[in-house]
Amino acid sequence: MDTFKAHLDKFITVSEEEYASIFSFFEVMDVRKKQNLMNQGEICGSMYFVSKGCLRKFFINQKGVEQTTEFAIENWWITDTFAYERQIPSDFNIQAVEHSSILVIDLQTQELLLQKHPVMERYFRMIYQRAYAASEKRIRYLYEMTREELYVHFSTLYPWFIQRIPQYLIASFLGFTPEYLSEIRAKLRS
Amino acid sequence: MDTFKAHLDKFITVSEEEYASIFSFFEVMDVRKKQNLMNQGEICGSMYFVSKGCLRKFFINQKGVEQTTEFAIENWWITDTFAYERQIPSDFNIQAVEHSSILVIDLQTQELLLQKHPVMERYFRMIYQRAYAASEKRIRYLYEMTREELYVHFSTLYPWFIQRIPQYLIASFLGFTPEYLSEIRAKLRS
Repeated sequence: MDTFKAHLDKFITVSEEEYASIFSFFEVMDVRKKQNLMNQGEICGSMYFVSKGCLRKFFINQKGVEQTTEFAIENWWITDTFAYERQIPSDFNIQAVEHSSILVIDLQTQELLLQKHPVMERYFRMIYQRAYAASEKRIRYLYEMTREELYVHFSTLYPWFIQRIPQYLIASFLGFTPEYLSEIRAKLRS
Repeated sequence: MDTFKAHLDKFITVSEEEYASIFSFFEVMDVRKKQNLMNQGEICGSMYFVSKGCLRKFFINQKGVEQTTEFAIENWWITDTFAYERQIPSDFNIQAVEHSSILVIDLQTQELLLQKHPVMERYFRMIYQRAYAASEKRIRYLYEMTREELYVHFSTLYPWFIQRIPQYLIASFLGFTPEYLSEIRAKLRS
């Protein structure tokens, strides 16, 4: 409960009493490593907030290979936003990378939360604004950088992340084969 | 004034009186074709809403070539969200593709608007949610599709867009040279 309060405090001001009410709209869930929270082709019912651990989003590409497009660590939200808003089948899977503790909310419950606590509109506005800002930057990188440059950029900016996440998932996120990632790493070390 | 009201009505309920107050926070601006609204390296002060016309966002890549990353037509917002939120120099340029009529708001004025009309938190939350959802889809396409597939996808989904926007800008958006785009188009016609 405290992690989420500390996180909310960065964006909005809520009393302890208000927070208790806000928190009651969420379901606390423990997910074990590699557990699936959402499956491609199923209605996207929920949004997930990571209190502890790490989730990832991926799709199965035409070659049958898992393509990771997003990670969410502590204090990040993850879902298929397009499918969630419309309550339609998702194009993605969401899976736990580590044993994780998460908060879950569905669309109707979120709407009730927003009605009862309009300050949460501000919170979610700021969350989506940041997420969108990050994706604008990311789209620029995808235009601008080679795969090798992307890896260097990524490992310079987020060295702890590279340490934390299994190599084959980093490779999947960057659109490499694990072998190609090993090659780049060897080249950078030499 | 009426365009923006009709647009707001899709997301929130505001009375005519409330709307008049909301609208007073925006500056109405006319921009001629190819006029720059924002320049790479300058503080990103404002967000732009397109009432009529079309804007684009681009950066100058390492080869000195303009790389378009985003278009905004009627009822879309455009800015460098990351730089806008932090009031720091932008990595992008924003320019009018057509003679356009736009609404402009800066960060302080937006904050005053949100304080006076909290219903606008909901509006902007939904706008950013949609923008983020669209970028999640776009990132997936960038992983999944070849450039040629991207063009086919884009021209199937938005044929009127391909008609409206100059070819060299479509090429820039897709990361092609104009010559490569001509080749693809010739190939698709044959």
